[in-house]
Amino acid sequence: MARASHRDRILDAGLKVMFRKGYIGSGVRDIVAEASAPQGSFTNHFRSKEGFAREVLDRYFDHVKGLVAQALGDSSLSPRERLKRYLDIITERLAADDFTRGCLIGDFSLEAAPQSEMLRERLDAIFVEWRAPFAACIAEAQAAGQIATTFSPDDLAEFLLASWEGAILRMKVTRNGEPLERFKRIAFATVFKEP
Amino acid sequence: MARASHRDRILDAGLKVMFRKGYIGSGVRDIVAEASAPQGSFTNHFRSKEGFAREVLDRYFDHVKGLVAQALGDSSLSPRERLKRYLDIITERLAADDFTRGCLIGDFSLEAAPQSEMLRERLDAIFVEWRAPFAACIAEAQAAGQIATTFSPDDLAEFLLASWEGAILRMKVTRNGEPLERFKRIAFATVFKEP
Repeated sequence: MARASHRDRILDAGLKVMFRKGYIGSGVRDIVAEASAPQGSFTNHFRSKEGFAREVLDRYFDHVKGLVAQALGDSSLSPRERLKRYLDIITERLAADDFTRGCLIGDFSLEAAPQSEMLRERLDAIFVEWRAPFAACIAEAQAAGQIATTFSPDDLAEFLLASWEGAILRMKVTRNGEPLERFKRIAFATVFKEP
Repeated sequence: MARASHRDRILDAGLKVMFRKGYIGSGVRDIVAEASAPQGSFTNHFRSKEGFAREVLDRYFDHVKGLVAQALGDSSLSPRERLKRYLDIITERLAADDFTRGCLIGDFSLEAAPQSEMLRERLDAIFVEWRAPFAACIAEAQAAGQIATTFSPDDLAEFLLASWEGAILRMKVTRNGEPLERFKRIAFATVFKEP
């Protein structure tokens, strides 16, 4: 197997450091130190911290899309159960980090979007792309009579992802899974309940 | 009227700068520059950036508590309407800043809580104190048959505040009020609907 290139190692390190210190707080120095790479290799591979952060974000979103496909593509479950499965998969991931790390998309939405118009626009496009498979799954659940049709699939998908980010935000303060479990318990008995 | 002391001016400036640059990104230098105060006056008044951030957060929470009292204390409205009134008041405030600023409690939950155990504990106490008047209002609404009693007032209050932070997070990316309006529309027709 080929060794990860400097470039990939710096991007992996960037995710770790930006999870810890945010977009503004992560210096190029921290990132190359985490990657055990020479300082010059950052500037060889990346034009700016902003462009670098966008690549880190895109790689993170690729990873999230894999988890979305895993949950929403599970045809052994009903469409409504698939939505719940996604939240359970994310809960397992967050628990594996002892609830200390959240979601980079949420972190960047609060902290990087006000700093960088490019990152804000990219985040907006990410949310639109992210919600599409959820909207499709919700439409399927609505067609099967598993979720009420009061609201459009897009509206419900947006509500789900934004409110889930709120539950993760609360989790970063409690440092336990209770806000995540509460969200699932309430959301699937109300907004996403069987009619 | 007495002139605001250096101390108060630095705290006011701290709120502005931390809204813009977060906890990690706000240097003491930025804060005293915003306050037009000499650098030494910060260290005269505050022991550390961490302690300073806690005071900024506490002052911000005092302001939020005033808005909570204004909405939830409005006896011309039903308990259920008071909940909605709070979200409308916050929406007006966020609109006044063109949806560029969010909520410092949410910002710090994602970004400062992982950095400072003291701030994390303070944020957890703030959420508990913040939800209490909402839980009381929800209990009143439940007793009046205006909200279903499936979930406890504390659970519903936590859900409301966390999911609302999620809507604000999404707003910081769209830069418009749509995520806030969507949240109110869906939440009050489902979780907080009249039974």
